[in-house]
Amino acid sequence: MSLRERYFSIRDRTLAICKPLSIEDHLMQPIMDVSPPKWHLAHTTWFFESFILNKYVEGYVVFDERFPFYFNSYYQSMGERQERDKRGLLTRPTTEKIYAYREYVDEHMSELLKTPSDVISGLVEIGLNHEQQHQELLLTDIKYSLYSQPFHPVYSAEPLIQDARALPSESKEWISIPEGTYQIGHDEDGFAFDNECKRHTVYLHKYSISSSPITNGEFIEFIESGGYSQFQHWHDEGWAWVNRENAQLPLYWEKQGDAYMHFTLRGLEPVDPNAILQHVNYYEAAAYAAWRGGRLPTEAEWEVASEHFSWGDVWEWTNSAYLPYPGYQKPEGAIGEYNGKFMINQMVLRGASIATSPNHSRHTYRNFFHPHLQWQFSGMRLVKDETQKL
Amino acid sequence: MSLRERYFSIRDRTLAICKPLSIEDHLMQPIMDVSPPKWHLAHTTWFFESFILNKYVEGYVVFDERFPFYFNSYYQSMGERQERDKRGLLTRPTTEKIYAYREYVDEHMSELLKTPSDVISGLVEIGLNHEQQHQELLLTDIKYSLYSQPFHPVYSAEPLIQDARALPSESKEWISIPEGTYQIGHDEDGFAFDNECKRHTVYLHKYSISSSPITNGEFIEFIESGGYSQFQHWHDEGWAWVNRENAQLPLYWEKQGDAYMHFTLRGLEPVDPNAILQHVNYYEAAAYAAWRGGRLPTEAEWEVASEHFSWGDVWEWTNSAYLPYPGYQKPEGAIGEYNGKFMINQMVLRGASIATSPNHSRHTYRNFFHPHLQWQFSGMRLVKDETQKL
Amino acid sequence: MSLRERYFSIRDRTLAICKPLSIEDHLMQPIMDVSPPKWHLAHTTWFFESFILNKYVEGYVVFDERFPFYFNSYYQSMGERQERDKRGLLTRPTTEKIYAYREYVDEHMSELLKTPSDVISGLVEIGLNHEQQHQELLLTDIKYSLYSQPFHPVYSAEPLIQDARALPSESKEWISIPEGTYQIGHDEDGFAFDNECKRHTVYLHKYSISSSPITNGEFIEFIESGGYSQFQHWHDEGWAWVNRENAQLPLYWEKQGDAYMHFTLRGLEPVDPNAILQHVNYYEAAAYAAWRGGRLPTEAEWEVASEHFSWGDVWEWTNSAYLPYPGYQKPEGAIGEYNGKFMINQMVLRGASIATSPNHSRHTYRNFFHPHLQWQFSGMRLVKDETQKL
Amino acid sequence: MSLRERYFSIRDRTLAICKPLSIEDHLMQPIMDVSPPKWHLAHTTWFFESFILNKYVEGYVVFDERFPFYFNSYYQSMGERQERDKRGLLTRPTTEKIYAYREYVDEHMSELLKTPSDVISGLVEIGLNHEQQHQELLLTDIKYSLYSQPFHPVYSAEPLIQDARALPSESKEWISIPEGTYQIGHDEDGFAFDNECKRHTVYLHKYSISSSPITNGEFIEFIESGGYSQFQHWHDEGWAWVNRENAQLPLYWEKQGDAYMHFTLRGLEPVDPNAILQHVNYYEAAAYAAWRGGRLPTEAEWEVASEHFSWGDVWEWTNSAYLPYPGYQKPEGAIGEYNGKFMINQMVLRGASIATSPNHSRHTYRNFFHPHLQWQFSGMRLVKDETQKL
Repeated sequence: MSLRERYFSIRDRTLAICKPLSIEDHLMQPIMDVSPPKWHLAHTTWFFESFILNKYVEGYVVFDERFPFYFNSYYQSMGERQERDKRGLLTRPTTEKIYAYREYVDEHMSELLKTPSDVISGLVEIGLNHEQQHQELLLTDIKYSLYSQPFHPVYSAEPLIQDARALPSESKEWISIPEGTYQIGHDEDGFAFDNECKRHTVYLHKYSISSSPITNGEFIEFIESGGYSQFQHWHDEGWAWVNRENAQLPLYWEKQGDAYMHFTLRGLEPVDPNAILQHVNYYEAAAYAAWRGGRLPTEAEWEVASEHFSWGDVWEWTNSAYLPYPGYQKPEGAIGEYNGKFMINQMVLRGASIATSPNHSRHTYRNFFHPHLQWQFSGMRLVKDETQKL
Repeated sequence: MSLRERYFSIRDRTLAICKPLSIEDHLMQPIMDVSPPKWHLAHTTWFFESFILNKYVEGYVVFDERFPFYFNSYYQSMGERQERDKRGLLTRPTTEKIYAYREYVDEHMSELLKTPSDVISGLVEIGLNHEQQHQELLLTDIKYSLYSQPFHPVYSAEPLIQDARALPSESKEWISIPEGTYQIGHDEDGFAFDNECKRHTVYLHKYSISSSPITNGEFIEFIESGGYSQFQHWHDEGWAWVNRENAQLPLYWEKQGDAYMHFTLRGLEPVDPNAILQHVNYYEAAAYAAWRGGRLPTEAEWEVASEHFSWGDVWEWTNSAYLPYPGYQKPEGAIGEYNGKFMINQMVLRGASIATSPNHSRHTYRNFFHPHLQWQFSGMRLVKDETQKL
Repeated sequence: MSLRERYFSIRDRTLAICKPLSIEDHLMQPIMDVSPPKWHLAHTTWFFESFILNKYVEGYVVFDERFPFYFNSYYQSMGERQERDKRGLLTRPTTEKIYAYREYVDEHMSELLKTPSDVISGLVEIGLNHEQQHQELLLTDIKYSLYSQPFHPVYSAEPLIQDARALPSESKEWISIPEGTYQIGHDEDGFAFDNECKRHTVYLHKYSISSSPITNGEFIEFIESGGYSQFQHWHDEGWAWVNRENAQLPLYWEKQGDAYMHFTLRGLEPVDPNAILQHVNYYEAAAYAAWRGGRLPTEAEWEVASEHFSWGDVWEWTNSAYLPYPGYQKPEGAIGEYNGKFMINQMVLRGASIATSPNHSRHTYRNFFHPHLQWQFSGMRLVKDETQKL
Repeated sequence: MSLRERYFSIRDRTLAICKPLSIEDHLMQPIMDVSPPKWHLAHTTWFFESFILNKYVEGYVVFDERFPFYFNSYYQSMGERQERDKRGLLTRPTTEKIYAYREYVDEHMSELLKTPSDVISGLVEIGLNHEQQHQELLLTDIKYSLYSQPFHPVYSAEPLIQDARALPSESKEWISIPEGTYQIGHDEDGFAFDNECKRHTVYLHKYSISSSPITNGEFIEFIESGGYSQFQHWHDEGWAWVNRENAQLPLYWEKQGDAYMHFTLRGLEPVDPNAILQHVNYYEAAAYAAWRGGRLPTEAEWEVASEHFSWGDVWEWTNSAYLPYPGYQKPEGAIGEYNGKFMINQMVLRGASIATSPNHSRHTYRNFFHPHLQWQFSGMRLVKDETQKL
C-alpha cells in the first residue's frame, strides 16, 4: 500500500469509528482525561495541517485561523490553547464544520502525497501513527462517556472492534527466561516513537512469565476473596484510591444478584469468566498480583519474553515507571513535546488491545498512563519466582 | 386570547429563542448555574406532562419513562434526577428527540385545552408562567455560554429582544415617599406566584427614590474612581468576591484601549454610556450605592414607589433578603417546592428586564438570586436620605 | 462600679476562661470559624492598644510592632493581617508573651482610666463590649476545639458557666401580640452597637409566640419522627447541608444505644429532655418549626414580645436576615467595619445564652451567623398562627 | 558502643533537636507533609513500645492506651489512627506528657537492653534507624514550619547541624564509568532497610558523572537565564507546578534587590554562590539538568560511581522511580508496611544531607519523595554524555 493509500485508509477508519454517534455525542467530555470525539477528529487533522501543510506547502491557506487555539492539545511551542478539561464546552465550531475541515485538509494532503519528499513521508508517518493513537482513544473515550450517562446508551450493535478473547483455562503456561543480558528497544527498522529508542542492553534475572493475561474468572476470585477490602495487597496510594472511590469492581462492572455484568460498546452484557480481563488500573493490577503471590513484569522482562507468548488483546500494566531509555534524545521543536515531557508519575503498559488500530502495534511499543486510570483496555499478566505456585 | 391560544403562543416563543442555535449549542453548560437549552426545552415540557397530562388525562402514555430522571429540576417529591451541574453531559436523548417530545406533549395539551376544567386551567397557568421564566433563563444562559467560548460566538444578528434602553441624563428625578403604612404583595386578582402572597401592611419611613436605574455612564464613574479596588464600599463577602475573581468590570465588559466594550447577543459592541447598566451582582450594586452615598431600596420601598416611575428594563437589586411574607403558606405537594425552600441566602430583585417574556411582569413579582451572580440582566436604582445630594 | 473597675473585672474574666487550658490548648483552631484562645487573648488586647493607647496616649510605645499583623481580625483599614484560617499556625509569639502583652496594655490602660475623657470612655466601652463578645466566642471555640480532638478532652469539672436551664413542660404558654405598629431598636440610653440603631417603627401582624424556647425533648420528637431524613421540612440549602454532612443530630450529640448523650464543657453527659436545646443551626431550627407546623419569629416579632417572656438561656434563631435598620449609618473609620460589612447572607439571632458574659445582653441586641453554623449556643422558640395547635 | 549505649545516644539527639523549641512550637503543622515535633517525639517512642515492649516484655503496661491512635503513622495493621493532616490539632496529650512517655519507655528499654536477644536487637536496630529518619524529618519540618510563620522566627543561633559545604569551583571533574555489568544493593553486612535488597546485577552504558553536586551559583545561572519561565526544560507536570505555585526560586529563597537571600535554621542569610544547592524538587532538578544539556543519573549509575566522589552534603535526586529491586520481598506483618507500599509515584534520592543523623548513611540507601516536594535538603549532580561539554 502506498503512503497515500495508507493515509486515506487510516483517515477513513477515524470516520468509521464516529459513524454511530449523534451530532451531540461528538461533544461528550464527562472527565478531563476524556476528550470529545469532535476534538479528536479536529486535533488529528490539525496535526497534518500544522506540522506539514502549513510548513511545506507554499501558499497554503489555513482552513480557519482560530483552529490552532481550539485543537492544539499540549504543544506549548504551538501557542495558547483551550484548557484540556473544557474541550467539551466547544459547541463551536460545529461538528459539520469539523468534518469539512477534515475534507479540506485531506484534499491538500492528497495532492501532496502524490510525490512526497522523505521529510514529508516521515512527518506523515508520525501523523498517521498519531491518528491511530487517537482512534484507540476515541473508542475508550466514547465507551467511558456513554457509560457516564444515565441509562448507559449503546454505542453500536455491531461495533468496529471485536470482543475480548476467551482463553481455555488449561492453556496457561509459565515461560522461563534465563538470567543474562538482553537487548530491548527499537532497532530503527520501520516506524517507532522516540520513546522506544535507543535499543540498548539490559540485565535480567531469571524469571517465569505467564503465557497469557489474567482472565475475568481469575480476577473474580480476587474480588470474592475480599481483595478490595484488604489493605495488605495494595500500595498506599492504591488503598487511598479504593477508599476514595469506594472501588469494589473493575470499571464498567456491575453486580446484579450473583451475576457479574459489564458495560460494553454493545451495552450491558454478562461477564465471560474465560475472557481476558479489561479496565483495571495499575493499583488493581498490582494488588491482584500481590494477592496471588506473584508480581507484574518489568517492561524489559515483558519485551524479552514477548516472542514466546501471544499478546495484543489487552494493554498489560508493567511494574516499570515511564522513564527515558539510555541515550534517549528529545527531538527538536514541537515534536519534542510528544513524549519526553510526560516521563514522570506514569507507568508503562505493553502490548496492544482489541481497540488498537490495525498495524499499530509492535513489541517495543511503550504505552503509559497514570496508575489510577482504568478507562483504557488494560489488564496484566503475572511473573513468578522460581519456587512459587500461583 | 384563549388559554389554548396563549399556550401555543408561549410555547412557540421558546422555539423562537432556540432557533439561532446549532444542535451542539443545545448542550452548552459552562457552569452549574446555567442549564443547556436542550434541558430548558425538555424541562418545561416535562412540567406539563408530569403535573397535568400524567395526572388528569386517563390513559395518557408518557413519551419516555426515563425523561423524569433527565428533566426534573429540583422537585424532591418527583423522584431522583440528573445532578444539576451535569446536565450538559446528556448527549442523549438527542435534541431531535426533545423537539419530538415537545410536539407529543403539545398535541395532548391541545386536546385537553379545548375544554379545560378550572383545576387544569390553574395548573396550565402555572406551567405557562414557568415556561416564561425559563424563556428568560434561556436567553441569559445562552448569552453566558456563548461568551464562555473562545472568540465569543454571536447568537444572532437580530436577536428576539431589544437593547437596553438609553436614558437622557436630564430625565432623572427623585421621587419622595412619605412615612406611613402601605400595602404590598399580590391582591389575588390575576396570576401570581405563592411568594407574592399574602398582601399585607408594611411601615415605611420617609425616603426618596430615583425615577430611573443607573446607567453605564454612571457606573463608569465608579470604575474610574477606583471603586473595584477600595474595600470600604464593599460587603466583606463582596470584597472577597472581588479579590477571588479579580473583578474590575461588570460581566461581559472588556476594555479595549480607552473604550469600554461589552458582549451582547449580537457580539461585542461599544458600551453606550446612556444605556441602562446590566449584569452587575448584588455586591457590585451595593458597593456602587455606598460609593455614591445612597443605598438600595428595600423591596417594599420599591413596590410602593413603582407606581411613580417606569420600570421593566432591568432587574433591580433590592436590599431585601428573600424571605416569606407574613401569612405565606407553602402549597401542598410538589408545587410547594417551587419557591419556599429557596428562601435563604438570596436577595430579591424587582421589576423585569428586556429579556423577560411579554406579559410576564407585574410590580409585585419577586425575583431572587444569590448575591454573587451577574449573569441575569440585573442593575439597580438608588434611594437617598432627605438631605443627601447624590 | 467605675469604668476602671469594670475594665479590670471584664479583663479578668477573660483570664478566668482560659485558666483551665494547657499552653498547647491556646493554639487550637480545628476550623476557620473558630479562633485559638491565644488569638482571642491578644486580639482583644490589640483592640485597646490600637484604637485607644496608640491614638490617645502621647509617647505610647507599642508592645511589639508585629502584633497588628498577627492580631488584627478583619479591619482592612488597619492593614494586612494573618489569614483567618491560619491563626492556629502561629506558635510565635508564645502564649507567655501574649499574657505579658495583656499586662503591658492593662498597665497603660490603668493609668489612662484614672481620668478618662468622654471620647476615651466611649471607646473603652466599645472595647469592653468587644471583649465580652470574645469571651463568649472563647467558650464556644474551646468547646468545639476540644470536641474535635480524639477522646474529647474535658475543659473543666467546674466550668465558669452554668448548664442549660431545665423547663417544666407544663410551663409553656402562647403569648398573643395584636396587629399594629411598634417601635424596635435601640433608644440611645446606654451602650449599643451601631447595628441596633436607629430605633424605628415596624408594622406587625397578629401572632402568638411561645413563652419558652424548644427543649431537647421536643427536638428528640423531631429526630425520632425522621425529621433529618424528610426533605420537605428543609430549605433546599439546608437539605444539601444535611446530606453533605450526613447530619442526624444536633452538634455535640451522640447516640449510645437508646440514650442521647452530648458533649459539654465537663465532658460527655446524658441529654436532659427538659433542658433547653442548644447547638442547632438555622436550617435545623427552621426545619423543626416547619415539621411542628409553626415558624420562627422575625426579629421584630421577637423584640416586641420579649417583654412578655424570659430569655437569655440560648441564642434564638429568627427568620430575619441580618440587614441594616432604616436610617442605619456606618460609623467613620475602622470602627465602621465592625458590623455593616457583614450584612449579607447571615441570619439574626436574638436574646443571649448561658455563655454570654454578665451584663452583656439586652433585648435590642442583634447577633448574627451564617445559617449552617451550629457551634454557638443556639436554639429557637416558635411562633404560630391564630388557628394552629402546635 | 553497645546497643544500649547507642540507644540512649540516638534518643538523646532527638531531645537535643527539640531543645530550642517553645512548647507551642511542638505543635507546628502548616501542611500535611510536615508533622509536629510533638508527634515525631511520640511516634518514634510508640514504635519501640508497640513493636518491642508490648510484644516481648511480659506484663508490660502501656503508658496510655490512647497513644496508638494518636501516634501510629500509617500502619494499617496497627489499627485506626489520627488523620495525617490533622496531627497539628492534637493539643492533648500535652508536650509535657509526651516527654514523660519518652522517659517511661526509655526506662523499660533500658532494662531490656541489658540482655537483648537477637530478635530484640534486630528490632531495636530498626527502631533506631527509624528514629534517625525522624530526626532528619524533625529538622526539615521545623525549618518549614518556622518559615511558614510571619516574620520567619529563628530556630537557633547555633543549630545542631552545619551549613551547606562551599565548593571551590575549580574542583569539579567528570568521572567516566565504562559500560558493563555492575552489582548494586545491599550485601547484607550491617543494617539496611528492606528496599535496599537484594543485591543484584545491573547493566550500565558508558556515562560521565560530576564529582560534585550543583552549587547555588550554578543554579543562579539557570534562574537568571529565565529557566523558570521557559517550558521546554520542564516536565509537563513540572511546568504545571511552576505555574500553579508561581515558582521562581528554590524553596526558602527570596530576592532583596539584586541579592539572593535564603532562610536557614539561623534565620535569613545571604545565599553563598559556592555552597551546595538545597531545597529544589525533582522538577527543578530535572529542568536544570535539561537546561544545562545534561541529565540526572539513575540510582544505579549513582551507586556505582559513588565510590569515586564525595557525597553526603545533600540528598541527590536521581532519574529513577522508587520501585522494588529484583527479588525484593516485603517482610511479614506491620514492618512490611515500612517501604513496599510506597513504591509508586515517587522518585529516588541518593546520598545523605547535612541534616542526616550521624552513622545513618550508606551508599546503598534509597530515599524517596514525590517529585513536587522541596522541603528536604535536596539537590542533584549531573551526568553527561561522552561528547557533551556542560
